[in-house]
Amino acid sequence: MAVGRVGSAPGLTAALAERAAAWRHEALDADVRELVRQCVLDWIAVCLAGANEPLTRMLAEEAREQGGHAQATVVGQGFATSCRQAALVNGAASHALDFDDVNMSFSGHPSVVLVPPLLALAEARGASGPEFMAAFVAGYETLCRIGAAVSPGHYAAGFHATATLGTFGAAAACAHLLGLRADDTAVALGIAATEAAGLKSMFGTMCKPLHAGKASADGLLAAQLAARGFTSRVDAIEASQGFASTHGPDFHPDAALRDPACGLYLRQNLFKYHAACYGTHAAIEAARQLAERHELCADDVMSVIVHASAVSDGVCNIADPRSGIEAKFSLRHTVAMAIAGVDTASLASYSDEQTADPDLQRLRDRVRVELHADCAELTKTEVVIRTSTGATLRQRHDAGVPASDLRAQRARLECKFRSMAAPVVSTEACEELIGLVDRLDELPDLSPLAGLLAGVPFDAARH
Amino acid sequence: MAVGRVGSAPGLTAALAERAAAWRHEALDADVRELVRQCVLDWIAVCLAGANEPLTRMLAEEAREQGGHAQATVVGQGFATSCRQAALVNGAASHALDFDDVNMSFSGHPSVVLVPPLLALAEARGASGPEFMAAFVAGYETLCRIGAAVSPGHYAAGFHATATLGTFGAAAACAHLLGLRADDTAVALGIAATEAAGLKSMFGTMCKPLHAGKASADGLLAAQLAARGFTSRVDAIEASQGFASTHGPDFHPDAALRDPACGLYLRQNLFKYHAACYGTHAAIEAARQLAERHELCADDVMSVIVHASAVSDGVCNIADPRSGIEAKFSLRHTVAMAIAGVDTASLASYSDEQTADPDLQRLRDRVRVELHADCAELTKTEVVIRTSTGATLRQRHDAGVPASDLRAQRARLECKFRSMAAPVVSTEACEELIGLVDRLDELPDLSPLAGLLAGVPFDAARH
Repeated sequence: MAVGRVGSAPGLTAALAERAAAWRHEALDADVRELVRQCVLDWIAVCLAGANEPLTRMLAEEAREQGGHAQATVVGQGFATSCRQAALVNGAASHALDFDDVNMSFSGHPSVVLVPPLLALAEARGASGPEFMAAFVAGYETLCRIGAAVSPGHYAAGFHATATLGTFGAAAACAHLLGLRADDTAVALGIAATEAAGLKSMFGTMCKPLHAGKASADGLLAAQLAARGFTSRVDAIEASQGFASTHGPDFHPDAALRDPACGLYLRQNLFKYHAACYGTHAAIEAARQLAERHELCADDVMSVIVHASAVSDGVCNIADPRSGIEAKFSLRHTVAMAIAGVDTASLASYSDEQTADPDLQRLRDRVRVELHADCAELTKTEVVIRTSTGATLRQRHDAGVPASDLRAQRARLECKFRSMAAPVVSTEACEELIGLVDRLDELPDLSPLAGLLAGVPFDAARH
Repeated sequence: MAVGRVGSAPGLTAALAERAAAWRHEALDADVRELVRQCVLDWIAVCLAGANEPLTRMLAEEAREQGGHAQATVVGQGFATSCRQAALVNGAASHALDFDDVNMSFSGHPSVVLVPPLLALAEARGASGPEFMAAFVAGYETLCRIGAAVSPGHYAAGFHATATLGTFGAAAACAHLLGLRADDTAVALGIAATEAAGLKSMFGTMCKPLHAGKASADGLLAAQLAARGFTSRVDAIEASQGFASTHGPDFHPDAALRDPACGLYLRQNLFKYHAACYGTHAAIEAARQLAERHELCADDVMSVIVHASAVSDGVCNIADPRSGIEAKFSLRHTVAMAIAGVDTASLASYSDEQTADPDLQRLRDRVRVELHADCAELTKTEVVIRTSTGATLRQRHDAGVPASDLRAQRARLECKFRSMAAPVVSTEACEELIGLVDRLDELPDLSPLAGLLAGVPFDAARH
């Protein structure tokens, strides 16, 4: 039994820890640095917009009640608290709208478990932009490599990978920012392994966003404890009754050690432009294309079949959503929205009222989802519309292909940023934030960014 | 899909929440009240003694660095912090020595996940002794009922039940102290379900005690968030891909709803008088009885066979422990200690030096463990000693039988208390603590208890 800091045959956990600890900002390619900046920009957008959600307010109130040294900014709440609490609140806030980025290698959301703990720790310790960026990449790649090791069984078994694997990503990122050596990073991953939790069956409740906050805070704790000399197994992922064997049927250590085709998992990062679960995006895009091309309105549509992966079930296949949050996890509802011309990018479109709209519900009743067990990819969908004139229209879409033009992607993200940040920070602050993120590689510390992120204290604004 | 606070057919989680919320101090039988006081007394003993362990010091330093309102005492560290942080540190401290109480219904340690969050919350909110006691029973019974539902598969699959199920127990206890209704208690259990984590493969590292701290703090968070109106599934245990189905092969909701033969699980509480894993206690008792009865010394012993449950493997069957902490999880080593007359109750007997003692190791080399797949009970053991004179001596012991004489148990616990608390608090404080716990049913608030528990600040004592 290999435990504590005692050496053992190098296993997957130790190998991943070694790779994580080795990242340096100066060795990052230009496109990788741009992708980090885009992830940070998009994260700020969704976090600012999520700051006023009820669940975020509850967590922020809880943080105020518990108290803590003013080490790290709570985004959009106008106060600072301990880094662990800031990571918890900001992690949940940024996932509150389910509008944050995705990586299919682990079926989850990377930035919401990486930026919150790193930002908190960087602010508390005065770390630089480049240090933050290298730590982000270290966390991102570790997270996705573990995803490759335990996919698809881990997610399919019922674990919310953003929560479970996210804890490892957060731990690896924070361990890097703290300058931990590989052996201490392995301890941090070990602590993360025994903290990792989160059920997919919580989708549609406030616990889903909470998962991102918990992964952020628990990963940060793991790294901080490892830095203090805490002990753990250094083979926690692959050990007998370790994380992998207790959390799903799949374990492919070789897949975790193989580089992805494009060199880095970060190059497969997918941003969201519809404010619903990523599993609905391909269907939304396909339905919208058909509706636009054939100038369809709701009345033209006799029936719709959505051919989707069986993986969708338990992810985004709520047949009759009863609330806005449930609508985000409904293929039937989001396809109806797309055909009816409802703006799927707008947060307001996912209100409880809009979800209960009788016209939309009548259209939704004509949408049928057919799940295909032979399709493992959540991002691939075909939509078939039968029109009242008897025509059959078909459109396929794959939402799993990352953008090839990073400039165009940045423009689209800045547009999303402005629309989401506007209600929380001033127009000037909005542009300043875009500029600061653009200069992330040169920032000696993150205090200017943190200062702007505090935002208008909502309580003050209400008076 | 039943989510949020929306009603659904009453399931196990809702039924448990209803029972948990219904407990009242005035309805507790006299023996049950005595058992609560004994649990609290024993918890204080192990927590005070664990306060100076390196892992506790690291967690206390982390809590100081993070900061927090001075709501709750960090035992033996001379400071107070936020309740969640106090629950984390005190939970880990009290499990640091693995000398705390046990309940076999869930294969875990109840008091280290119930007292820390309750004590913190009661101190912060000014709750009374009777309120604390009713909440303790609510948490205890909920914890054990969930244990009955998922045993033995949950623990056997590799989950540390103290950590995972402990989170539910802590949540139920805190929900009760906060006065939550049954439906909000179900939400708290739902949040706990998605936070619950902890791997059995961490035994022998600092992560095992950390589990008790995490369960305490996460359970407290679950109750606090439920009180704020957070949403979760209200059928989180039994749901498709809920806690039970993702965390082991067994699920027996009927077993969770059946009362135990003695009415309450608390009546099956087992206290520890050897400072090692409970799975070694039957073997220690049997070996000691043989050694005493036949006046054996190490040299008289040719070979020893320990017949134990196959469940011991992966729990307390480290063949060649290399540290004091590993020795606590070694049937071979603890049996050798018992035969050699080493005091298995003394913490000092589990030092790294004692574990490396050549005489003890030579005796240990003559001990063989035979695991029996047909025996499911970790507490039942037979020890067979073959002596140098050719005699074969046999002794069975079942460490799973609770004491029938509560007065005698209290006397034994007070003796343990005095020996463990002495190095941390003064003799006067020690007696005062015993007296306060004895009057728990009458205390209007717990501040006198908390004041004494702060103990000597170690940092101050060192200067």
